[in-house]
Amino acid sequence: MTQVSPERWQLPDGVDELLPDAAWRVELLRRRIVDLCQSWGFDLVMPPMIEYLDSLLTGTGETMNLQTFKLVDQQNGRTMGVRADMTPQVARMDAHALRSDAPNRLFYTGSVLRARTDGFGGSRSPLQFGAELFGHSGARSDIEIIRLMLATLGAADLSSDELILDLGHVGVYRGLIEQLELAVELESELFNCVQRGSFPDVEALLTDVPAAKQHGTAEQLGQLMSLRGDMAALTNARSAFASAPRAVQEALDSLQVVIEGVQRIHTNISINIDLAELRGYSYHTGVLFAAYTKNGLELARGGRYDAVGAAFGHPRPATGFSGDLKRLADRLVESKENLNGIFVSANLVDKAWHEITRLRNTGERVVTELEGVDTQLQRASCKRVLKQQGEGWNVSDLA
Amino acid sequence: MTQVSPERWQLPDGVDELLPDAAWRVELLRRRIVDLCQSWGFDLVMPPMIEYLDSLLTGTGETMNLQTFKLVDQQNGRTMGVRADMTPQVARMDAHALRSDAPNRLFYTGSVLRARTDGFGGSRSPLQFGAELFGHSGARSDIEIIRLMLATLGAADLSSDELILDLGHVGVYRGLIEQLELAVELESELFNCVQRGSFPDVEALLTDVPAAKQHGTAEQLGQLMSLRGDMAALTNARSAFASAPRAVQEALDSLQVVIEGVQRIHTNISINIDLAELRGYSYHTGVLFAAYTKNGLELARGGRYDAVGAAFGHPRPATGFSGDLKRLADRLVESKENLNGIFVSANLVDKAWHEITRLRNTGERVVTELEGVDTQLQRASCKRVLKQQGEGWNVSDLA
Repeated sequence: MTQVSPERWQLPDGVDELLPDAAWRVELLRRRIVDLCQSWGFDLVMPPMIEYLDSLLTGTGETMNLQTFKLVDQQNGRTMGVRADMTPQVARMDAHALRSDAPNRLFYTGSVLRARTDGFGGSRSPLQFGAELFGHSGARSDIEIIRLMLATLGAADLSSDELILDLGHVGVYRGLIEQLELAVELESELFNCVQRGSFPDVEALLTDVPAAKQHGTAEQLGQLMSLRGDMAALTNARSAFASAPRAVQEALDSLQVVIEGVQRIHTNISINIDLAELRGYSYHTGVLFAAYTKNGLELARGGRYDAVGAAFGHPRPATGFSGDLKRLADRLVESKENLNGIFVSANLVDKAWHEITRLRNTGERVVTELEGVDTQLQRASCKRVLKQQGEGWNVSDLA
Repeated sequence: MTQVSPERWQLPDGVDELLPDAAWRVELLRRRIVDLCQSWGFDLVMPPMIEYLDSLLTGTGETMNLQTFKLVDQQNGRTMGVRADMTPQVARMDAHALRSDAPNRLFYTGSVLRARTDGFGGSRSPLQFGAELFGHSGARSDIEIIRLMLATLGAADLSSDELILDLGHVGVYRGLIEQLELAVELESELFNCVQRGSFPDVEALLTDVPAAKQHGTAEQLGQLMSLRGDMAALTNARSAFASAPRAVQEALDSLQVVIEGVQRIHTNISINIDLAELRGYSYHTGVLFAAYTKNGLELARGGRYDAVGAAFGHPRPATGFSGDLKRLADRLVESKENLNGIFVSANLVDKAWHEITRLRNTGERVVTELEGVDTQLQRASCKRVLKQQGEGWNVSDLA
């Protein structure tokens, strides 16, 4: 055997291949999730793997620029991108090809590629799944989407009492700082301080802003960063922000309605309110949520992003979630190794073809022998064997 | 509404998105094919979307260079390629991660990307599906693979009497020219003439090759190009090449065994023998085959490519086929529009949640109303409605 450089089969960082057992679990979970979404009235769509960058990075896609692999279309020199997130694609489909004024429920699953290993648990090749509900702006659609997200996790055998549901609302932070009318650079710097959770930096930054002094914004942001936990955090937020603008109260009201709607069905789920969690702040407009295991592993996340589709000429309210099917499938305990195949000797294959086809059509796995290769090796994956019995056929255990 | 440039949603040539009805048919067919391959003892694998070019274009992948989109890995500057064909990837998995001396049956389905629109019916984003059988070199594995290919077409409601099965064997052409010991350039030019079907060019090219004159190779190649049709073509080939090298006779023998093996099960299939069809000649080593509709639309193709895996240090005989799931799904007549959803009024949703979940778990599609949007619009996709009846629930037709 020749010496082969290991580079030949080394995969790039964050890129993986799924061998039969893992692939089987992903397929199993994929079907459960597809069936589930269909049964909730959501329709499967399949967006393209590549698009012109103009479309791909429009609207909610803008933030994905650094994560998007670029390609040149040899036919016209235009730059294309490999999808790094299917959400903006589905929003384009809702706004253009499926344009309607009715609510539109869509779901999807497919490979996405990331240029960098940050986020998504280091994977650069997640198998994204997700669902989006377009055309409704009330709490009820957020509730439906969060319930569906929890049901998809249920399809991976994760019951809601094993999960932590993180919840926030961009309207709280947005309402607190809007009245300061900050310059864009300052606003962006402030956002970074809040995301880092650094109160001294927030204080220093706002010290020369008269409106901040007047409203006590630094203190309010300090409370925003410390308010986190169960429903009590929401009560505390109400009193902490009692003098804040109306938009802040409305955001808290809306968050409460959503949480109560989820809890009516998922009575045992651990709720973690985090008003300083602002992932996707640039395009999110309302509730934000994420589901974690109790060990802190993120399984799915989403939020409301109204006015999506505006870039395509058809603004629509929207709410949705997504996750990585490969990561979620790791939770399944099922194994392909339990498949109980039926072995058929080479000399019987054509004679028994009708019976073999019948067995396969009933869902049985039938492995036919190939002559010239060791029989023991070939039937290793089988526990049963097909044998001739008089005029008919009989399946019995392999000795 | 703002004016939006149509470039915003224009997709690149040969790239498509699947809306709900088409996506539903692809999903339906995908499941049937996955179930079928599983029941034949094949294991699903999921190769990566991207790999380093060194791995991707190794072995049978070499010919895909021009079709492969190239990317730079920002983390180390190495060149990666987006898969344009999953066959070489699966061969790598058999030779490396799944290394074994037993026969190995693998299948796959997933997006591939093509840099050019030539081939695959102009699509640059096929949803490839296929199966490969590694570790067996006899006719029996070719027969199994061709039968499986026909069974997957059967899953798309194409019975074998609606199909044409094209068959050839690279060993016939190879055997005829091997004895000429041509220089590489001349051999390549000759190959192009044969592929063009131009006998005068073949004659002109071989006129100065003494060995060709001695063996009557030009005339033999002329016959090779004209021999095509049903089993009679094979009989004619035997007499035409009676004086040709032993390798040619062996190739014809082997082709006959494979065809007879297919015909034992598929008695009505139209066989079209074409000994000058040499697609993939550089890596194929035996039988070549393709399935067409009677209108000439290619649905799947494949062949034997022994010694695959040598580049990964583990040479293995192999035979397999592949096709485009999207193209095949166009054959299905099923429509999602026949789904008969159950509508639930907004005010009943939480009260009926237990019943809604029960219905969904039995496979029913239940659409819950969102308040604030026109009810007629929302229930357009439903033919039934859930109503309260005493203490229980009742599904009735929508008036």
